[in-house]
Amino acid sequence: MRIVRSIRDLQHALRDARAAGAASVGMVPTMGALHEGHLSLVRAARAENDCVVLSIFVNPTQFDESADLEAYPRQEAQDAELAERGGADLIFAPTVDEMYPSGHATTVHVESPLTTLFEGARRGSAHFDGVATVVAKLLLAALPERAYFGQKDAQQLRVVQRMVRDLGIPTRIVACPTSRDRDGLARSSRNVRLSVDQRRRALAIPRALTAVEAAVAAGETDAALLRALAVETLAGTSSPEVGVGIDPEYVAIVDPDRFEPLDTLAGEALCAIAARVGGVRLIDNVLLHPPTTPKEG
Amino acid sequence: MRIVRSIRDLQHALRDARAAGAASVGMVPTMGALHEGHLSLVRAARAENDCVVLSIFVNPTQFDESADLEAYPRQEAQDAELAERGGADLIFAPTVDEMYPSGHATTVHVESPLTTLFEGARRGSAHFDGVATVVAKLLLAALPERAYFGQKDAQQLRVVQRMVRDLGIPTRIVACPTSRDRDGLARSSRNVRLSVDQRRRALAIPRALTAVEAAVAAGETDAALLRALAVETLAGTSSPEVGVGIDPEYVAIVDPDRFEPLDTLAGEALCAIAARVGGVRLIDNVLLHPPTTPKEG
Repeated sequence: MRIVRSIRDLQHALRDARAAGAASVGMVPTMGALHEGHLSLVRAARAENDCVVLSIFVNPTQFDESADLEAYPRQEAQDAELAERGGADLIFAPTVDEMYPSGHATTVHVESPLTTLFEGARRGSAHFDGVATVVAKLLLAALPERAYFGQKDAQQLRVVQRMVRDLGIPTRIVACPTSRDRDGLARSSRNVRLSVDQRRRALAIPRALTAVEAAVAAGETDAALLRALAVETLAGTSSPEVGVGIDPEYVAIVDPDRFEPLDTLAGEALCAIAARVGGVRLIDNVLLHPPTTPKEG
Repeated sequence: MRIVRSIRDLQHALRDARAAGAASVGMVPTMGALHEGHLSLVRAARAENDCVVLSIFVNPTQFDESADLEAYPRQEAQDAELAERGGADLIFAPTVDEMYPSGHATTVHVESPLTTLFEGARRGSAHFDGVATVVAKLLLAALPERAYFGQKDAQQLRVVQRMVRDLGIPTRIVACPTSRDRDGLARSSRNVRLSVDQRRRALAIPRALTAVEAAVAAGETDAALLRALAVETLAGTSSPEVGVGIDPEYVAIVDPDRFEPLDTLAGEALCAIAARVGGVRLIDNVLLHPPTTPKEG
């Protein structure tokens, strides 16, 4: 697996690939610590493009705590092996100095509930500025035809979609379904930190999302009732066998473009949950499609 | 002269031009009300590119006062004639809705003295965000090989250079010398508002810049002394024949990259002046190149 460290080398490699006949480039931006969820993005990119570049960059500007940044897992050799297995052609793994050389002063900001509520509120106002800026820079460095992001980080996905559309970056953002383990838990590099018991409790998160989804399919449009259903499912009161329930950080029922909280579902909506299980913070979400005929009262 | 109104039509026109053999596109972003200064940019673009696109967009987000925005001159027919005479191939004149459709939420911000001091202080913090954002959008819409900006708006030029470099927009920013009338006054659409007497007084601005330039060439490196020289020249105390002198809004002696005020000139510097003459606000500047051997004390 070829790994390039500089934007110049990336551009040379992609120019060579295009000169050799690659009609399209697909990019998968990651922070490394690859797992099956990332590989599903690589495979999606592989299926649609002649050349697939995976970037690995632990972006300091999107971390609110330096301890968190330092503790972030770095395992490039293993990542390279996984990326190759997934079908990537090239890894772009720049240094912090390559991405933010001395004098760098530009930030891309998305002004929206998207960046201030839920994950934005928790991670601080700089978090999504960091995300929008680094994704803009990665896309402009590679100018791929398509870039792949997981629906699991729903808010990040929408910030990126908004930014790319607003600035007119000539890349199509492809949203990929959340990759799940067989038991339904959304794949995350943090899952390995769950004990067997914690993992069993964590399953209340996908169960709550499924319950909300089913209620919406059955015609429920009252967001407060849907939130209550999720909270109740997370608490486990309706499934006493789960043991200690989960007290969520938030259960959001929002419009998926702006993450504006909804009172009533009219069109497509999104239910997002964040919760700590033991010391591990987990997030997950589901898109909600109300049936076209409203529930009869 | 062909005028396109949408980004899609612009991209089609440029694709056609490239398909017809144009190896490079040069872009001249303007707010219209073209004068000889703009035409010097068009000619520079014409000399270096196979296809020249001039954009005309009175960008609302860089105006701090809506009255100023509304009063801004719009004279598209005359602009088109001048652009054609200058050698442009195409005009991109989008509507406000085309550039900022409903839901647009992204801003490009340059965090630097560049955007907060001098013109930044006067125009408000949103001004250079508006400039950086619209230029990013224009460049990403056209993806020109080169874009042309005048040295006269020195601070704007440096903000654009910083933003393009930081984000990695694949366009070379070409800085063009300030276009001057025979009497030395920097060309500006505002000059027509000067009376004969005011114009004679306004010439103290280029005279002050020339005096500072000469002092630097002679070895002066003390910024306070250079500023005092400029202020004195503007006041006209050393040229009593000029009549009523000019009291500048600022005389800045700064490093040209960050617009950080300097105490002592070590390398290249910039002297920028803003002043009102009658009701007309004028700006001008000169790059200063200290001789390599410092002045002997």
